[in-house]
Amino acid sequence: MEKVNIAEKFDLFEEYWTPKIIGQLNGQDVKIAKVKGEFVWHDHANEDEMFLIIKGTLKLEFRDRTITLHQGEMLVIPKGIEHKPIAEEEVHLLLFEPTSTKHTGEIVHEMTKTDHDRI
Amino acid sequence: MEKVNIAEKFDLFEEYWTPKIIGQLNGQDVKIAKVKGEFVWHDHANEDEMFLIIKGTLKLEFRDRTITLHQGEMLVIPKGIEHKPIAEEEVHLLLFEPTSTKHTGEIVHEMTKTDHDRI
Repeated sequence: MEKVNIAEKFDLFEEYWTPKIIGQLNGQDVKIAKVKGEFVWHDHANEDEMFLIIKGTLKLEFRDRTITLHQGEMLVIPKGIEHKPIAEEEVHLLLFEPTSTKHTGEIVHEMTKTDHDRI
Repeated sequence: MEKVNIAEKFDLFEEYWTPKIIGQLNGQDVKIAKVKGEFVWHDHANEDEMFLIIKGTLKLEFRDRTITLHQGEMLVIPKGIEHKPIAEEEVHLLLFEPTSTKHTGEIVHEMTKTDHDRI
C-alpha cells in the first residue's frame, strides 16, 4: 500500500496517447495520460469511461454534440457512445475504467496501445 | 451525459463525513466529501477504496503505520484493511468505490450515513 503523487507520475513519461496505470481497485484501473492533437473515433462496447482533467482543455466530440472539459472537470462516457478526444494544447488526464479496457475500443489504429504500463 | 465541475460540487454542501455521489460508472461511485476531525476505525470487507486529496492534508491511520496524504496524492486501501482517517483541518476528498459501499464499513456508528446523496 503506497501513496501516489499524481504530478510526480506525470513527470515519468512524455509520450502522448499512451495511458499509464497508477492504481487498481475493484477490477478498475486508474490511469493517467498526456494527450495532444486528435485521437480516433471509437467507443467501448462494455465499459463506461471517466475522464478527469488535471491540466489543460480537452474537447470531446460526440456524434450529436461536443463537450469541452477544463481543468477540474470530469465526464463519464457511457459504454457504446462513440467519442473522439481532441486536445489543441497538451492535456493531462486522469482516467478511470475497467482493467484491460483498450483505449481505442475495438478500433485497431496506429494509435492503439495494447500494453498499458503500470508506473 | 453532463460534465461535472468538481469545485462547484464542493460548494453545494457543508457537512463533514457525508460523501456525495458525483458520478457513477461500471458499478462504481465517484464521491466527494468534506472531512474534519477524527473518523472511526473501520474496514470494507469486500471493497477496495480510493482516496484522492483535492484540498488539505489527510492522515490515514492503519494498525501498523500511518500514511499522510497531501493535495494531489492518492491511495488505494485494499479491502479488509482497517483504517481511521484523521483531518486536523478541513480536507476535500474524491473517493472511488463500488456503489453502495458504506463509509464506515460494517461498523454502525453515529457517524454512519446510509444514504449517499447524488448531487
